[in-house]
Amino acid sequence: MFDRYEQLLHDRLRELTLRGDYRYFARMERSEGQFPAVTAHGFSPDFRAYYPKTANHLPPIFDAPHETIVWCSNDYLGMGQSDLVKSAMCSAINTYGAGAGGTRNIAGTTELHDELEAELADLHGKQAALLFTSGYIANEASISTLGRIFSDCVIFSDADNHASMIAGIRHSGAEKKIWRHNDLDHLEQLLQSVDPARRKIIAFESVYSMDGDIAPIADICDLAERYDAFTYLDEVHAVGMYGPRGGGVAERENIANRIDLIQGTLGKAFGVVGGYIAGDAVCIDAIRSFAPEFIFTTALPPAIAAGALASVRHLKKSDVERLAQRRNVAKVKSLLRDGGAKLIENDSHIIPVLIGDARRCKSISDNLLRERGVYLQPINYPTVPKGTERLRITPSPLHTDDQIDELVEAIFQHTL
Amino acid sequence: MFDRYEQLLHDRLRELTLRGDYRYFARMERSEGQFPAVTAHGFSPDFRAYYPKTANHLPPIFDAPHETIVWCSNDYLGMGQSDLVKSAMCSAINTYGAGAGGTRNIAGTTELHDELEAELADLHGKQAALLFTSGYIANEASISTLGRIFSDCVIFSDADNHASMIAGIRHSGAEKKIWRHNDLDHLEQLLQSVDPARRKIIAFESVYSMDGDIAPIADICDLAERYDAFTYLDEVHAVGMYGPRGGGVAERENIANRIDLIQGTLGKAFGVVGGYIAGDAVCIDAIRSFAPEFIFTTALPPAIAAGALASVRHLKKSDVERLAQRRNVAKVKSLLRDGGAKLIENDSHIIPVLIGDARRCKSISDNLLRERGVYLQPINYPTVPKGTERLRITPSPLHTDDQIDELVEAIFQHTL
Repeated sequence: MFDRYEQLLHDRLRELTLRGDYRYFARMERSEGQFPAVTAHGFSPDFRAYYPKTANHLPPIFDAPHETIVWCSNDYLGMGQSDLVKSAMCSAINTYGAGAGGTRNIAGTTELHDELEAELADLHGKQAALLFTSGYIANEASISTLGRIFSDCVIFSDADNHASMIAGIRHSGAEKKIWRHNDLDHLEQLLQSVDPARRKIIAFESVYSMDGDIAPIADICDLAERYDAFTYLDEVHAVGMYGPRGGGVAERENIANRIDLIQGTLGKAFGVVGGYIAGDAVCIDAIRSFAPEFIFTTALPPAIAAGALASVRHLKKSDVERLAQRRNVAKVKSLLRDGGAKLIENDSHIIPVLIGDARRCKSISDNLLRERGVYLQPINYPTVPKGTERLRITPSPLHTDDQIDELVEAIFQHTL
Repeated sequence: MFDRYEQLLHDRLRELTLRGDYRYFARMERSEGQFPAVTAHGFSPDFRAYYPKTANHLPPIFDAPHETIVWCSNDYLGMGQSDLVKSAMCSAINTYGAGAGGTRNIAGTTELHDELEAELADLHGKQAALLFTSGYIANEASISTLGRIFSDCVIFSDADNHASMIAGIRHSGAEKKIWRHNDLDHLEQLLQSVDPARRKIIAFESVYSMDGDIAPIADICDLAERYDAFTYLDEVHAVGMYGPRGGGVAERENIANRIDLIQGTLGKAFGVVGGYIAGDAVCIDAIRSFAPEFIFTTALPPAIAAGALASVRHLKKSDVERLAQRRNVAKVKSLLRDGGAKLIENDSHIIPVLIGDARRCKSISDNLLRERGVYLQPINYPTVPKGTERLRITPSPLHTDDQIDELVEAIFQHTL
């Protein structure tokens, strides 16, 4: 690589380090049936051997591997550890093989893909659904494709929307208007400011991942109806967990029929990997037919579809995991609140403990891991705005009361 | 959905249908150990119940399910059926669970991810590698991130580059110059036309997927050196298959060290799913640190990493699969050539049979499937330019001599 490229790359990484935002990934080894107990094995990658001495990316100090409890997984209901899901995957691997072998259009479609799409459509009470390799690409592809088809449209985007929705909006080429987070007056003001003849998409989330607050979906739908807008709802932090069948907040509030396109993930509460959208057949069909991100990508492995299918079907019928999760969430919240922790309050399963400084957040997280075997990844910029750095706790049904007590004690020891 | 949205979606789909480009996915059921023999189960999705009668999307006529040989899979070496890969995946599912449970930065990194990245870096003789959920997103994220970091750069793109590279270039915001496919003079002319002070990325592929022709990599590297350009090479249709260890065409020609960033896939010859890049640590680190597509995406499941690891390691040592594939490719090519089929000639494992008309290509494919149990997906626009519609045959080591004879006979029956 010529110097003029290498130097720029080093410069950008050095800026990141100086801001305290250079990231190492904590490596967590799992053993059969033990999750959320894992063995912490230090941090990766360590590229310092290749860097000038001035680069100064220092990995957190870390001693021998030691037992650790994961408190920041998005496997919210522990379904990634479910025997039902694991055996469905292994059985599909034996029957179908490892990969899909092609795009959905070229040798990559099996009945497992079709069944999973039908199951997801049913979960949301929609005509059809479409799988993607990730929730990120589901958002990016769907929004950018709709934005292009609805020519000359304006996309109204909640200020806290996920990076993947922002990417989709940018790549659509459509005009964008950002409304203040969950602020209906501001949204209406912006809707009013646009020619009624122009097409409009309102894009928002149900549960916002980092604050854990929930959108006023019904009120947004009222506005959408008043201004003839298309509604796009990201439910990735809600599917599996809210609603009687795990259909998300829209199902719980019985308004899924007022949302034109619902986007979800198979990689969080469903415990596997992949993203999807559900909506009217014509809408799903258009995205299926025109989104290059879908057309030109190898299909999810049949075994991933099989695991997700088992998980979605189970959570449609079973409330056990949701009830156990809610109990653990309530317990952690109340213990932290009683002890005086600075919680960002919300009505969801996400517990954000505000720290407010990138270096301090990182150092608390390092100490919790090293000294107490508590893994809480620091949540810093660009995932959250500067000044709102936080620890984000996601209790699952798999955490025990003893683990909860130790977590709370450790947090108070290191943050107060 | 309001009429003004629904109508537009219908309109766009109707245009597609009128052009003959509306796609149904052929659904192929597999049974244990039988691949490439599968059972064809018809076509999906069928949304006609939701459509106005005028829409006229007619799925291909299809009778009862029947045995079919898949001839268009990108599981080029049959590794998706390898017991080694399948058992590595099942074993990882039992130990680690179904999914990763988070992004690489938040609870999603395991030793399997780190080991696979080290193995891929070694495969290409590079300092480091980085995993993505797909080859598409590996290209889109890497090129767009580099284009943004190398501010004011110009990206020189081969005219036949894959949709994912084109998306990455567009999303980088950088100036783009397209050189005629594999035309070195044109590339040099364009390089000359740009201020020497400006940064330059040359982005190209080794094996082009649809024509199967191979880029003059060394000559392109000569030009890159003369004009101080950064080189980006997509080897998705080469990794696993070319070079003594399956390191791709660049390994075979012993010039991987002259390429700054190599992009590959785990979803074709390696038989699993996912994409990756390999290069200098600083380059990998910058993309790892700045690409939102990487930062905000759930990590590949540990079991996918385990399967890919087994596959990459095996193909580093074993030539059996590559030799068997080459033998079958040579046999199919020579039988087709001898019989007078219109092949698009090349030196790769991809056998394109030119048809040149979308409707005819589709109807031949339908007839091959229905009457002869031969599955060759028609390759139409937008995957290839209009007028170059084709059947694309990818013989694997798993195809038998009898299956080859039947394929060739069926093609002659239906195309001549």
